[in-house]
Amino acid sequence: MDNITIKMLAEKLGTSVATVSKALRDSHEISIETKLRIKEMAKDLGYVPNLYASSLKKRRSKTIAVVLPAVADSFFSQAINGIESIAQEKGYHVLIYLSHENFEKEQAILKDFQSGRVDGVLMSISSESASHQHISKLHNNGTPIVFFDRCCEEMDTAQVATNDFESGYNATQHLIVAGCERIALLTISNSLSISNKRMAGYEKALLEHGIQPSPQDVLLCGASEAENIELTKQLLKTKNRPDGIISTVEKLATSCYLACKELGLKIPGDVKMVCFSNLPAVSILNPSLTTITQPAFEMGAAAATILFKALAKPTMNLKNESVVIPSALMIRDSSRN
Amino acid sequence: MDNITIKMLAEKLGTSVATVSKALRDSHEISIETKLRIKEMAKDLGYVPNLYASSLKKRRSKTIAVVLPAVADSFFSQAINGIESIAQEKGYHVLIYLSHENFEKEQAILKDFQSGRVDGVLMSISSESASHQHISKLHNNGTPIVFFDRCCEEMDTAQVATNDFESGYNATQHLIVAGCERIALLTISNSLSISNKRMAGYEKALLEHGIQPSPQDVLLCGASEAENIELTKQLLKTKNRPDGIISTVEKLATSCYLACKELGLKIPGDVKMVCFSNLPAVSILNPSLTTITQPAFEMGAAAATILFKALAKPTMNLKNESVVIPSALMIRDSSRN
Repeated sequence: MDNITIKMLAEKLGTSVATVSKALRDSHEISIETKLRIKEMAKDLGYVPNLYASSLKKRRSKTIAVVLPAVADSFFSQAINGIESIAQEKGYHVLIYLSHENFEKEQAILKDFQSGRVDGVLMSISSESASHQHISKLHNNGTPIVFFDRCCEEMDTAQVATNDFESGYNATQHLIVAGCERIALLTISNSLSISNKRMAGYEKALLEHGIQPSPQDVLLCGASEAENIELTKQLLKTKNRPDGIISTVEKLATSCYLACKELGLKIPGDVKMVCFSNLPAVSILNPSLTTITQPAFEMGAAAATILFKALAKPTMNLKNESVVIPSALMIRDSSRN
Repeated sequence: MDNITIKMLAEKLGTSVATVSKALRDSHEISIETKLRIKEMAKDLGYVPNLYASSLKKRRSKTIAVVLPAVADSFFSQAINGIESIAQEKGYHVLIYLSHENFEKEQAILKDFQSGRVDGVLMSISSESASHQHISKLHNNGTPIVFFDRCCEEMDTAQVATNDFESGYNATQHLIVAGCERIALLTISNSLSISNKRMAGYEKALLEHGIQPSPQDVLLCGASEAENIELTKQLLKTKNRPDGIISTVEKLATSCYLACKELGLKIPGDVKMVCFSNLPAVSILNPSLTTITQPAFEMGAAAATILFKALAKPTMNLKNESVVIPSALMIRDSSRN
């Protein structure tokens, strides 16, 4: 009788494997009544709660995966250092997989994990990810997944985020106080939750100061730097051009600086700027760059810590472990009044 | 008779597995006489040359590993992009492993590959790697390894490098022509071959201009930025201080700029600077930074191309595939006369 599986339980109960798995993990997605019914049946049939744990243990690869959109970004490279600091303590290998912001690539990577190649996954989703079925499939099959930074909030697992809404709000508020009257926002996605939160904070700060947010002031940038410089120049050539720019992505700071240089606009005299960036070089830029500095190392370390807790105790409710670690506004010359 | 293995050949011949393996791969480490003797015996016993290939094929994981000292470096992140561009064409996964410049960590990573987790390895060695036994063991067991950037020249395999000696020479020559009389060199290793080559180029240029290289002008930096700033400040406070600095590592540019700022020294007025760097932000630094820009993407792509050739034809002589792709001196404001 110790061979009762989640699949057998699901068949007996006439429900799905995912529902049984979620119920046994105490997911908030499942009603209390259903959870009680499933747990009772599991007990009656002699399902051993940590069968899941021990079967997982058998195929332990002592390896965790980190799935990232890119490494050419100081946030992600610092987050990796945070992850590795914890993994090293636990004697685990860390594998880094890059989705390059591509949905198909991300799907292929997660499919590869189905073979048990890794024990758990830390993930920051691609800006092009249109759905999260590939992620929930892996998670429901018993590979724990913890999100960091770019989270998938609909999913029933832990999310390690920073205060994106407040950071967008603080950056905008800072530029308004510095005298900006038309503030543009540069983003790379209108589907990622972190982008939307940063934008919502930006809009709230504008509205609080009686400024109506305008879709024309939100610039959706892409992968090519040349193109991003061109887009920024177009924006800065409009009549009544923006006098403040918030870049929600580190790499867009370079294209902003270069666009201003090409147009002969002075930072901060003509255009003030704040950028979400963890680049160590921000203080030696010309001018030094005001940033929203994220707790990248801490976020990576927190996500890894949660994942190892889940590996040690697979029945835990991961969603309850979610945490928000605040970012800091670091004022430098690019936004001085 | 088609089950003859390299091990059986070695026993028959009274030699080591490594010698047989190297002889069959036409390694230059094995004398022509020995190679002929081994190949003859292999033929007589009906050893199928591509047995190696087919046994490898059976355990193909469709995965290659990239072993790097760090990702918080634009050279490595661009090289990864080059590697992935080729791997994607071939339908391969790329796993990134970080040694964090640590010899023990690098050994543990390579040991993990012995299980057949990956089909081949691209590698840039850690600055602390004291020997290469762990690498040659893996390579001799049939996992092809290709080096890029930080190569292990003693090893009998392909090396994808840039012209480090000429780059060190060109950087120094440029600073001398710009008027520098005492040029310091910042490095992170005195064992890595790329560091030694860059330094040899630096010394040659100095000697050609009648300047005697001095050990006091070579600064060995570490992992901590605060410490590197302090070391650079000490150097810049010496009597008859350097008026030129060559940084052989990207991250040391930030510590140099900050050290100069703290001491009130102007770049390029008081100190001129050249740095090996691929950072996109170099042109918006204050002042813009003169760089040795390495063909990072191309080096990654070339290394991956060679590795896939080796996977398709395991008997090929990898050493013959070695290639040098030149870097470029990009003159900007930090070294202007």
